[in-house]
Amino acid sequence: MTTTPSQAPEHGTLSYEQSGVNYDLIDPLKVAAQRAAAATGIHLAAHGFSEVTASRGESAYVVDVGPFYLASIVECLGSKALVADEMHRLTGKSYYDAIAQDTIAMAINDLITVGATPLVVQAYWAAGGSDWFADAQRAQALVAGWKHACDRCGVAWGGGETPALAGIVESGRIDLAASCTGLINPKERLSVGDRLAPGDAIVLLASSGIHANGLSLARKLVERLPQGYLTPIEPGVSELTYGDALLAPTVLYSPVTEALYRAGVTPHYCANITGHGWRKLLRHPALHTYRIHTVPDVPPVLSFMQRHARQDDREAYSTLNMGAGFALFVPADQAERTVATALEQGVRAWVAGHVETGPKRLLIEPLGIEFGDDALQLR
Amino acid sequence: MTTTPSQAPEHGTLSYEQSGVNYDLIDPLKVAAQRAAAATGIHLAAHGFSEVTASRGESAYVVDVGPFYLASIVECLGSKALVADEMHRLTGKSYYDAIAQDTIAMAINDLITVGATPLVVQAYWAAGGSDWFADAQRAQALVAGWKHACDRCGVAWGGGETPALAGIVESGRIDLAASCTGLINPKERLSVGDRLAPGDAIVLLASSGIHANGLSLARKLVERLPQGYLTPIEPGVSELTYGDALLAPTVLYSPVTEALYRAGVTPHYCANITGHGWRKLLRHPALHTYRIHTVPDVPPVLSFMQRHARQDDREAYSTLNMGAGFALFVPADQAERTVATALEQGVRAWVAGHVETGPKRLLIEPLGIEFGDDALQLR
Repeated sequence: MTTTPSQAPEHGTLSYEQSGVNYDLIDPLKVAAQRAAAATGIHLAAHGFSEVTASRGESAYVVDVGPFYLASIVECLGSKALVADEMHRLTGKSYYDAIAQDTIAMAINDLITVGATPLVVQAYWAAGGSDWFADAQRAQALVAGWKHACDRCGVAWGGGETPALAGIVESGRIDLAASCTGLINPKERLSVGDRLAPGDAIVLLASSGIHANGLSLARKLVERLPQGYLTPIEPGVSELTYGDALLAPTVLYSPVTEALYRAGVTPHYCANITGHGWRKLLRHPALHTYRIHTVPDVPPVLSFMQRHARQDDREAYSTLNMGAGFALFVPADQAERTVATALEQGVRAWVAGHVETGPKRLLIEPLGIEFGDDALQLR
Repeated sequence: MTTTPSQAPEHGTLSYEQSGVNYDLIDPLKVAAQRAAAATGIHLAAHGFSEVTASRGESAYVVDVGPFYLASIVECLGSKALVADEMHRLTGKSYYDAIAQDTIAMAINDLITVGATPLVVQAYWAAGGSDWFADAQRAQALVAGWKHACDRCGVAWGGGETPALAGIVESGRIDLAASCTGLINPKERLSVGDRLAPGDAIVLLASSGIHANGLSLARKLVERLPQGYLTPIEPGVSELTYGDALLAPTVLYSPVTEALYRAGVTPHYCANITGHGWRKLLRHPALHTYRIHTVPDVPPVLSFMQRHARQDDREAYSTLNMGAGFALFVPADQAERTVATALEQGVRAWVAGHVETGPKRLLIEPLGIEFGDDALQLR
């Protein structure tokens, strides 16, 4: 990792694809794995259960176990730990409480998209060697942040794994992941399948910044910044540095979805806006048009990234969350209550648009952007 | 990784502690994490559920959700992938189908100890970069082995994560883990808590070799072998090499525990014999004496390791599974049925001893070994 400008490349547009992850290499394996996985759903019949086939390709896998649905997931933090490590080197602060929350958010914010109440989180902390754990301050920050996120979401931390994987994980690094299990109870809360319909309102929940997707791009961008991670993102306005802003922890959205249930709002569909940015609004397999009339405020760190990566709005909204961390698709007459309920949980929200009959596309009208059916290939 | 004898150290006893994992560094974090985790169990009450507190410190975490118990876990393969990679370099064969099974076995064999039927497995395959996935033969072997293990255990493969983690995972390596969720149904199958009692029989299920624990020691040992991983372990008897023998996949025990339920046998307790070898027989918190009168045949690869590591029986049985991959504690009058049921599933088994009143200790009578209460500190 470098923060010196001497190694900066020419300052053209920096896209996500240029930042290091080559999906062309990963995708054939993913497709093979998805096919093999889909063929195993039939095993549940021997136990008297069945899969919710519509959950294949969604953010969490759902099984019908009779009185309720069971949802489960495993999720990885990704490369945000590298930013935390570099900022620790530069500032002496530990950011592991923040990235612990990010890791749990990656799992929980996906799990709740299917309508599940998260119940149990398991920790997967694979270090590059036993000596990683010798830094007590960092280790305690990780534990404290993990516990705090569990408290915030009302989930039980069941346990986990803390392997020392010298030779597999890089020395001095840690691979953070979380698994999460929850229940969809009552079963009417299931939000995959056919509930999404024209006329539904699209409510967007505010993000706190970059969350935990787009970090490869964020790290690549550091090469362009004279002060690297210590560059102020709003000079004259605040002293907040790029690194500190990147490390704002991901918003945990399960307090909102649980409060919505208590308020009598059952979303027809949800999308966790992670990789692929706003293209995730096209996630549902049905052929609808999604028309956005209001876009949230863009967090300063994302405006900063867009500017320095020289991305136009189309590229930025197709890569980053641009202020919207989670999308709820609710009946139109429940849209305002959804916004109010989110606010009660401390999360800003906007009635941003609606679903309508028409070809599969996303129209972000204030920005004049259209994404078509081919913009998102996740399944 | 080296296979040349020139770098071999003096050939004294090689213990697990010498092989590279320093638990003194990891344990303070583990204790802090366990304490923090235990404090989160109360959150389940808000959802109308409660934890099975006796499952804290067991191999899987259990929640009472009303009509049944929910069990979940995340488990890591560990360093066995390094052996697979080196053997691929030496032989050109891919061993990723085998280590896929190992990874699933790590999760499933732990989950079933609490009495759970495994229902859903999630894959966590974190590679050192996108290019890991470019080796189609290896990637397809991983998918095929994973699918085959799911088929064998009757679990649904729900999905997973395939991140490319350059800078965190070493280039060319992969960090393999699995999460698993299951149900204890009916609730009488729960096998943690107070069911274990003096008079219970101890039935041991055969291992296939080293399984996926003790690999750090196995890799360290390679330095002592003139032909490294290609050293025949039974010269004159077979051509099986040390590397091939190490890579025999872990036995999946859930077909046995499911068959036992169908046969009317409900174990009082189970122990998955992984790290710490036979000391895992002391896992239950109650104060009982465990008397072993019969020891299983030792797989040739483990005899070979014991000989070359110059371990006495006490050291070997406290580190490796020595032929026993899983222990079932069953009512004495169901012991023979347990053995017969395991055999029907293709797994050899032995009525190896019994539980009796007395100080907490394990007596392996045929070998004159005794492990006291202080031999296993896992909780």
